Amino acid sequence: MTVTAPAGFDAAGVAAGIKRSGTLDLALVVNRGPSNAAAAVFTSNRAKANPILWSERVILDGRVDAIVLNSGGANCFTGPEGFQVTHRTAEAAASALGVAAGDVLICSTGLIGDQLDGDVLEEGVHAAVARLSAEGGGDAAQAIMTTDTTPKTVVVEGNGWRIGGMAKGAGMLAPGLATMLVVLTTDADVPAALLDAALRDATRVTFDRLDSDGCMSTNDQVTLMASAASGVTPEPGAFRSALTQACRELAEQLQADAEGASHDIAIEVRGALTEDDAVEVGRSVARNNLFKAAIFGNDPNWGRVLAAIGTTRAPFDPYLVDVSMNGVRVCHAGRPDAPRSLVDLTPRATHVLIELHAGAASATILTNDLTHDYVHENSAYAS
Amino acid sequence: MTVTAPAGFDAAGVAAGIKRSGTLDLALVVNRGPSNAAAAVFTSNRAKANPILWSERVILDGRVDAIVLNSGGANCFTGPEGFQVTHRTAEAAASALGVAAGDVLICSTGLIGDQLDGDVLEEGVHAAVARLSAEGGGDAAQAIMTTDTTPKTVVVEGNGWRIGGMAKGAGMLAPGLATMLVVLTTDADVPAALLDAALRDATRVTFDRLDSDGCMSTNDQVTLMASAASGVTPEPGAFRSALTQACRELAEQLQADAEGASHDIAIEVRGALTEDDAVEVGRSVARNNLFKAAIFGNDPNWGRVLAAIGTTRAPFDPYLVDVSMNGVRVCHAGRPDAPRSLVDLTPRATHVLIELHAGAASATILTNDLTHDYVHENSAYAS
Repeated sequence: MTVTAPAGFDAAGVAAGIKRSGTLDLALVVNRGPSNAAAAVFTSNRAKANPILWSERVILDGRVDAIVLNSGGANCFTGPEGFQVTHRTAEAAASALGVAAGDVLICSTGLIGDQLDGDVLEEGVHAAVARLSAEGGGDAAQAIMTTDTTPKTVVVEGNGWRIGGMAKGAGMLAPGLATMLVVLTTDADVPAALLDAALRDATRVTFDRLDSDGCMSTNDQVTLMASAASGVTPEPGAFRSALTQACRELAEQLQADAEGASHDIAIEVRGALTEDDAVEVGRSVARNNLFKAAIFGNDPNWGRVLAAIGTTRAPFDPYLVDVSMNGVRVCHAGRPDAPRSLVDLTPRATHVLIELHAGAASATILTNDLTHDYVHENSAYAS
Repeated sequence: MTVTAPAGFDAAGVAAGIKRSGTLDLALVVNRGPSNAAAAVFTSNRAKANPILWSERVILDGRVDAIVLNSGGANCFTGPEGFQVTHRTAEAAASALGVAAGDVLICSTGLIGDQLDGDVLEEGVHAAVARLSAEGGGDAAQAIMTTDTTPKTVVVEGNGWRIGGMAKGAGMLAPGLATMLVVLTTDADVPAALLDAALRDATRVTFDRLDSDGCMSTNDQVTLMASAASGVTPEPGAFRSALTQACRELAEQLQADAEGASHDIAIEVRGALTEDDAVEVGRSVARNNLFKAAIFGNDPNWGRVLAAIGTTRAPFDPYLVDVSMNGVRVCHAGRPDAPRSLVDLTPRATHVLIELHAGAASATILTNDLTHDYVHENSAYAS
C-alpha cells in the first residue's frame, strides 16, 4: 500500500523502457484531494539535477497535484536539453491528469550525465496515468529502485488518519537537508506551512542523520503530500510525531540496504555542549574510512574513533572521552579500559557510544561499514 | 644515506623488540652540529599522542640534538604512564648522548591505545646509540616502517649543501598541518626561524596536499634539523625550493605506497578564486568514496566529481565547470563532452583536471583510489 495507504492517493509504477533491463522504472503518485497541500526538502548539494531545479520552483506555492519519479537516469549535468525533458514530463502528466504542470513535481535517479529520452518518459507517463489506482503504491515503490535490493515502505496510523511512504536509496546517503527519493502521503488535513515545518523537523533528526558513505547526492528529494481525505485535522504534536516515526522507519530501511554494508552502525554521541556538536562528532566517525573498515573486520579499534573526533571543532577534552562498543567501555578518560577482546562485533547491529563529558546534548548518526562489496558495487556501477 | 647524506648527522636503526616480528623498530638521528637549529610541524588533530605532546614543547626553543622514532606502538591514549614512557625515552637518549632531554624529539607510530614498555625502549635507545654512524640513515628509514612496503628516502643537492630525508606512512594520510613521520636533515647553515618558515611553506604545498584516505593521524610529525656542517649559508630562495622538492618527492613516495591503492590520483583544480578554494574543491573529490571506488574500477565517472565539488563552499558555478580525466575532457560547461569511453584509466598515474572558471588560483591534491586491498588491510590491522 505504501503511499496509497492514506485515502485520496492513487499511484502506479510502470516499465517505461528507461532501464534496459525492462523492469519498472517510472512511478506516478497523484493526490486526488480535496486538499493538495505539500512540502518538500531538497539536497543541499550545489550541483543539482534538473528535476531538483524544477521541483524547487513547483513547491514554492505549497500545492502539489502529482509527482513523477524515474529511475534509470539522474538527468543531472545534462544541460538545457535535460531541463526540457523534465519540463516535458511535467507537462505530459499535467495534461493527462487535467492539472497544471506547475503543480507536478519531478524526481530522477540514476547515473549523472546521461541524457533521458523525452519520448520514452512521455509515453511512460501516459502508461502510468492509465494504470493509476489506490492499490498502485507497491508498483510505485518498485519503480523507483536502482541498486536497492528491496523496496522501502512505511505506514503509520494516526487517530483517524494515516501517513504512508516509500523511499529509494542505497548509496550516496549523506544529506545536508534531505536525502534520496522519498514520497510521504497523508490523508490528514494539514496546511502546507505546517507540513513544511513538520517535514523539516522530521528530516533533521532522521534522514539528515543517516550518513552511509559521506557522499551527498545531486538528486535527493523528500516530498510530503496531504489530501485531507480523512476529514480529520490532527493534533500538530501527534502529526509531527507520526511523521518523524515514518521518516525514521524509512531511514532505517535505507541504512539496512546500503550498498555492500555488513554492519548497521549507530553512533550515539552524549555529553556534547550542543546538538550540533554531537552531530559533528558523530559524523566525523561515520565518515572515517579506517573506522568503517575496522568495523567490517569486527575489530573494536577505538583509537580510530578518537582520531576521528579529534579532527572536529566541537568543544570537549579528547582525554576525558569514554568510548563503548556494543556495551563494552573500551576507553575511559583517554586510556584503555575493558579489553577490546570483550567486544562482540559479529552482529549486524553495531552500537558505538561516545561520552564527551562536555554538556548535556546528544545525537545519533546512522552509518555503515566499509566493505569489499561497497568497493565492488561502486566501482562497477556505470559499467 | 637519506638523513645521513648531509654532513653532521649520525643515525641508527635497531630491533629493540617493540615489534613482535623482530624487525627494526627504533630509529635514532643525531645532529652533531656545529649548529643544532631545528623546526617541526605536528598533526592538527586535537587527539594527540604522547610523543606529540612532548615534542611540541621540545621544539619551542628551535634547538634539537636528537630524535628518537619507534614503530610498533603509537603511545596515544595511554594516559600519564604513556607520557612517562616518552619522557623516559628522551632522558635515556639525552644521557647516553650527553645532551639535554629537552632537546630530544620523540616520534611514535603504530596502534593507538597500546602501552609501550619503557624498559624495551630504553634498551633500544642504548643499542641505537652504540650503532650510530654516518651510514646509519638506511637502517633508520627501515626502522620507522609500519605497513609501508618500502622505505621512503630523498636527497636533494644544493650548492655546497644538501638536504636528506626519510618518511614513513601508508595510511591515515590527511594532515591538517603536517603528516606522518618525516625527518629532514641539512648541513646548510640556516637559523631556526628560517627553518620554521621554510618548513611550513614546503609542507603546505606537499604533505598538506596529500590526502590518501581522509583520515588524520594522532601522531604526525615532520622535523627538519640543520647542522651547518657544510659551512655554507644558502640563498633562502634556493633552500626553500630544495626543501619543497625534498618534501614533494617524499610525499609522492608516500602516495605511491598508500595502503592497498591501485591508482595514484592527482586532482588538479584550476580557475579557483583563491588557493584555499582550489584546495577545498580538490579535497572534496579526494575524500569522495564513490569517486575513489570508480577510479579503482577504471570508470571515468565524472558525475561523482561534480557531485563532490557541489558540496563545497568555494565560489564557482557548477554548471560552468569542465572536467578532464587523463587528458580527455568528459564534461564541459555542465554537460557531457567527449565520450567517457575515450578515457584510459588503466595506468596507475591518474590525472583529474577540474577547471572552475571562477578565478586564477590553482592547487593539486594527491590521493589514491578506494580498493579491496584498502578495505582488507585496514580491517585486519589490529588483528
